[in-house]
Amino acid sequence: MKAIQVGLLGLGTVGSGVVKIINDHQDKLMHQVGCPVKVKKVLVQDVDKKRQVEFGKGLLTRNADEVIHDPEIDVIIEVMGGVEHTKEYILQALQAKKHVVTANKDLMAVYGTELLDAATENGCDLFYEASVAGGIPILRSLVDGLASDRINKMMGIVNGTTNFILTKMSKQGSPYEEVLKEAQDLGYAESDPTADVEGLDAARKMAILARLGFSMHVDLEDVSVKGISEVTDEDISYSKRLGYTMKLIGIANRDHNKVEVSVQPTLLPDYHPLASVNNEYNAVYVYGEAVGETMFYGPGAGSLPTATAVVSDLVGVMKNMRLGVNGRSAVLPQFEKALKQSDEIYAQHFLRIHVKDQVGAFSTITSLFSERGVSFEKILQLPLKNSNLAEIVIVTHQASNKDFDEILANLLDLEVVHGIKSSYRVEGNGYS
Amino acid sequence: MKAIQVGLLGLGTVGSGVVKIINDHQDKLMHQVGCPVKVKKVLVQDVDKKRQVEFGKGLLTRNADEVIHDPEIDVIIEVMGGVEHTKEYILQALQAKKHVVTANKDLMAVYGTELLDAATENGCDLFYEASVAGGIPILRSLVDGLASDRINKMMGIVNGTTNFILTKMSKQGSPYEEVLKEAQDLGYAESDPTADVEGLDAARKMAILARLGFSMHVDLEDVSVKGISEVTDEDISYSKRLGYTMKLIGIANRDHNKVEVSVQPTLLPDYHPLASVNNEYNAVYVYGEAVGETMFYGPGAGSLPTATAVVSDLVGVMKNMRLGVNGRSAVLPQFEKALKQSDEIYAQHFLRIHVKDQVGAFSTITSLFSERGVSFEKILQLPLKNSNLAEIVIVTHQASNKDFDEILANLLDLEVVHGIKSSYRVEGNGYS
Repeated sequence: MKAIQVGLLGLGTVGSGVVKIINDHQDKLMHQVGCPVKVKKVLVQDVDKKRQVEFGKGLLTRNADEVIHDPEIDVIIEVMGGVEHTKEYILQALQAKKHVVTANKDLMAVYGTELLDAATENGCDLFYEASVAGGIPILRSLVDGLASDRINKMMGIVNGTTNFILTKMSKQGSPYEEVLKEAQDLGYAESDPTADVEGLDAARKMAILARLGFSMHVDLEDVSVKGISEVTDEDISYSKRLGYTMKLIGIANRDHNKVEVSVQPTLLPDYHPLASVNNEYNAVYVYGEAVGETMFYGPGAGSLPTATAVVSDLVGVMKNMRLGVNGRSAVLPQFEKALKQSDEIYAQHFLRIHVKDQVGAFSTITSLFSERGVSFEKILQLPLKNSNLAEIVIVTHQASNKDFDEILANLLDLEVVHGIKSSYRVEGNGYS
Repeated sequence: MKAIQVGLLGLGTVGSGVVKIINDHQDKLMHQVGCPVKVKKVLVQDVDKKRQVEFGKGLLTRNADEVIHDPEIDVIIEVMGGVEHTKEYILQALQAKKHVVTANKDLMAVYGTELLDAATENGCDLFYEASVAGGIPILRSLVDGLASDRINKMMGIVNGTTNFILTKMSKQGSPYEEVLKEAQDLGYAESDPTADVEGLDAARKMAILARLGFSMHVDLEDVSVKGISEVTDEDISYSKRLGYTMKLIGIANRDHNKVEVSVQPTLLPDYHPLASVNNEYNAVYVYGEAVGETMFYGPGAGSLPTATAVVSDLVGVMKNMRLGVNGRSAVLPQFEKALKQSDEIYAQHFLRIHVKDQVGAFSTITSLFSERGVSFEKILQLPLKNSNLAEIVIVTHQASNKDFDEILANLLDLEVVHGIKSSYRVEGNGYS
């Protein structure tokens, strides 16, 4: 029986994993799609490099055209990374009527809608499960599993590096810099960790999730982002005392068809299902109108988990090929984009400030909050050692971002306020 | 455009939920499948009963044939429950070339393979996502999301009633009888709770999961079952002291293509992802060779969550109808059934016994274990109040069920052993 032929762009950790899975699971793949799968051509930077997997002569090439325009290749798998080049390659592949599977979140976050349009036009599949939370079949669950529901909220721990760092900080009580160094030594963080620790990587994944879950074109710039590099061990220690766990959380929220998408260090109640997602693991919590709370948990990265998602997409493409129905399953944006303004985004807020330890200080501060109708859920005041300052930690009830930002600005004008040490979003929802 | 017409068998809580979702989400359904969906006919026991949803005259019927053999009906949704009648109805529906969606775990656990065969023969879809863990799209994830992987282990909290009871026992320290009563008052347990508390309901779901995940025909009788009715508050209290959480866990394990499927109260380390699944929630933990550990969490029952799964299946059927590819996606058993024997099933074991408080008692007991090469991970010995007995709690390292059962039998013959109070499986795996 004729094999389905696959061209691979890139042969790094994920690419090697894809080759390994295709080789190891021929029986299962054969059983599922009824024909063999064969890697026909692989684009690499260095043909002569020593590799763990052996390849036949002529299989590796430095020339992208030899992969993309090989008439015998049915499916292109893009696992090389990068944005501009890969966009070009994928567009060419789609125009050449080849189906595409990609693990590229950077690309899909920025050009997802354009590429999906091109796929639909050319009657091709473009699948990208591996781009969000590697080993977790979350995109598929949103599209198929929760097909009949209306998704109103998604919260994700979608970056393994930052989750590893925050878990270690929390368990060891160590400062950020020290744990970052440890993560780098263990290979969980890159030597330049900016994209991870500043939240950009998570933002890309949240843009993809929001687009799919809300069926609305959300741009990467629409995602407000704050990373973890300013999280201190004091903040984590106070959070713990108040019953919270600190996580870098991507939030996508919809109310009356207006959405907010953001990434920021967030305090979750210890009993929240996301609070016990530790180390480099990822999880996406989904709130559907009918289904209620669900959560999908698993490895967010790694060669084999990510490759599994890629090959599962490949199986999807191959099933569609055998059924002759490719290019019909892309979910294109259905609703006009409508973003919430800061006076429409509500959350609880954690605030830690230093104030002068004098009579009336606390009431001066609280009156700022009450003027805007913001009340407190939790308050902790402690004297600061070796100073005439006091430390006040506050968790507010629900307040709009606008009100809270204004309160922050006004606090700085108060003579009794010595400094604002930190503030975080608090997510009080979730089952108990 | 011509609507897709649906016939409903049953209009209880799930059936009403299905009607509500179809009505509320017409726009979304229309967007996804490109045509409207209409409930054409509903089989009920009492046509004149007052209901929350209003139905047009003639929509309700007591005659099953009017639903199953209505030539205009494309899809039959079975949410009436029961086994023999429903099996007959579904077979008739399939023979009449109607696609079927069912939420019936009792039916699918016993006749699943036969019904799926009939569906394939007739070119019809037969979907049953709602039969396992209501709102969690777990079957779909096994079939599609982890399509390229080899699943070697599944552990499930797949019964909400027992999870509710064990959670309450653990949090309140209350005895079983008291919490069962509370669960019944709250509607989480039936007035006859046998099927839930004795593990049968969970066993049905594990049979379905094992069949799908391992692609092997597992019969309900192949599942070894122990319920929670003998779990005492002492057991839970000791588990806690040793760092474990007690859950009713369904386990499906595969080694070298031999499988074990069982349901029993199990001690999980507190850090295991399943340990924090509380109250009536369900979760299925899946271990795939390539992907590693994943977990799917959500509501296991309830009108709307279950109905969501049913309607998602309906969307799957409708998409297939529009693409003309129904009846091709059933996963039929691929491997010959091979069950592990008790000397091939390994686990850690928790044991609580009462012994006479005399010199040499402990060493007499431990020699029984060491004779079979079974060693201890944890030991706790305490004097029993108001008696001359001591209580010994042991957690073994990995031992085969055969060895452990023989040890239990021999313990009873020992003069120093006053009684075996309880024993449980311990699952030491999972991330830490």
